Amino acid sequence: MDQQLIEIETFEEVMFFDTDCGGVVHNLAYLRMIETCRTKLAALMGMNLREMATKQLFPVLLRTEVDYKSPARLGDTLRIHGWLAGASGVRFRCEFVMTKRENPDVPLVTARQTLALVRFPEGKPMRLPGEWIRNG
Amino acid sequence: MDQQLIEIETFEEVMFFDTDCGGVVHNLAYLRMIETCRTKLAALMGMNLREMATKQLFPVLLRTEVDYKSPARLGDTLRIHGWLAGASGVRFRCEFVMTKRENPDVPLVTARQTLALVRFPEGKPMRLPGEWIRNG
Amino acid sequence: MDQQLIEIETFEEVMFFDTDCGGVVHNLAYLRMIETCRTKLAALMGMNLREMATKQLFPVLLRTEVDYKSPARLGDTLRIHGWLAGASGVRFRCEFVMTKRENPDVPLVTARQTLALVRFPEGKPMRLPGEWIRNG
Amino acid sequence: MDQQLIEIETFEEVMFFDTDCGGVVHNLAYLRMIETCRTKLAALMGMNLREMATKQLFPVLLRTEVDYKSPARLGDTLRIHGWLAGASGVRFRCEFVMTKRENPDVPLVTARQTLALVRFPEGKPMRLPGEWIRNG
Repeated sequence: MDQQLIEIETFEEVMFFDTDCGGVVHNLAYLRMIETCRTKLAALMGMNLREMATKQLFPVLLRTEVDYKSPARLGDTLRIHGWLAGASGVRFRCEFVMTKRENPDVPLVTARQTLALVRFPEGKPMRLPGEWIRNG
Repeated sequence: MDQQLIEIETFEEVMFFDTDCGGVVHNLAYLRMIETCRTKLAALMGMNLREMATKQLFPVLLRTEVDYKSPARLGDTLRIHGWLAGASGVRFRCEFVMTKRENPDVPLVTARQTLALVRFPEGKPMRLPGEWIRNG
Repeated sequence: MDQQLIEIETFEEVMFFDTDCGGVVHNLAYLRMIETCRTKLAALMGMNLREMATKQLFPVLLRTEVDYKSPARLGDTLRIHGWLAGASGVRFRCEFVMTKRENPDVPLVTARQTLALVRFPEGKPMRLPGEWIRNG
Repeated sequence: MDQQLIEIETFEEVMFFDTDCGGVVHNLAYLRMIETCRTKLAALMGMNLREMATKQLFPVLLRTEVDYKSPARLGDTLRIHGWLAGASGVRFRCEFVMTKRENPDVPLVTARQTLALVRFPEGKPMRLPGEWIRNG
């Protein structure tokens, strides 16, 4: 059966509030940018933010692994490439590579995240749609 | 009539995530520190965070005026002095002065904030307790 | 003499990290969005972020006044309209109105900020270009 | 030879800005709290923030693994227990367990981070002190 990668790219210009006094982007700022990418990836997968707020059905982060390989600086434009890397039962995995827009072959930061779809306020994990499992 | 100032001081050590590549504390970090001070001031005034979460009765920020006078740097310990500056009807005002702990006479940042007590999710402002109005 | 308003509009989709447990956008998140708008406004005025980092010549925030009028929520797309409101000597002023993209006539947040161009690490304010003063 | 664990505990009260509209602490807020704990652990190990700023010798984060096991909420006081878990050559590893202060046996978040001591602006990693390697 044919598989189609569910993927997205987002771009972020590094702002003052993303940097620290070491002169480079702070480790938390990369994760905020990755969350924006992941949210837009989730929208592609059918999870609209407004609907989530209404249905109180949210993707919950269970685990992050992030490797910081090379620093970005003020004014750099970063490309965040994210994709659905796998899904099974109630969990799904996303992967991300961040590069400078003009050097898409040199990874600055790579990350792998595991999430679950959880209904609030009970905190009950939901079974994932079959198409995520096929395409993940 | 006798008035007693409702006031508090909090202390924060400047961390990497508080600074930017200009080498000084970023403007948003001061406001986060002021919010922590304001929350502890609110606790003094009887607004406990856990109770707020349970009762869904929250202090809502209506207005901030903040003046940035002199910069702080990595490793500085900042003193935030906050007090209830006034209250009337459904609004109350807080004021804040931030200094280095070792120079409490040289203001780095000053701020004035206006808030209301609002019941969620309706967004209904509540009348303030009489003692706030007397002591504000 | 003819004046031309220096202005810009930016858009931001409200993410989870922008909200708090009151269910609405947190006061600091609006100011981060305003800073992104102000940075792009500064680029229009000739202040490129990469050049700033190289020349160590940065716009420094001296004062913010911000009024929170009506809340935004998860998934809202916000429009931030910013413009140069005045300049004289070493200071310039910017103003901002934030609305939902689909309701550009209902202000959620308004802000006025005063800045100076400062050379680092000395902290020396620079005279502003004549065209800012004419168009501000 | 005798080993002594280099460890620290810090405490943080959950503020509004730490939470999101799911009603729980946002994943980035835990990592900010862990960074504060790590900075105080580094001070124990002889890395003072002010000295770092002066010498431009900073601990740089290379990798984070974080597991989110159970959520914290507004008003919870969190205990972050951090320790030096290992050191060799130019890298050292820290580990962290976050719990509620009143339930120190139920982990909410656990994290493992790898760092290097790097001299700025060249980005040159430094050999670690022998005592870190012995006690790590």
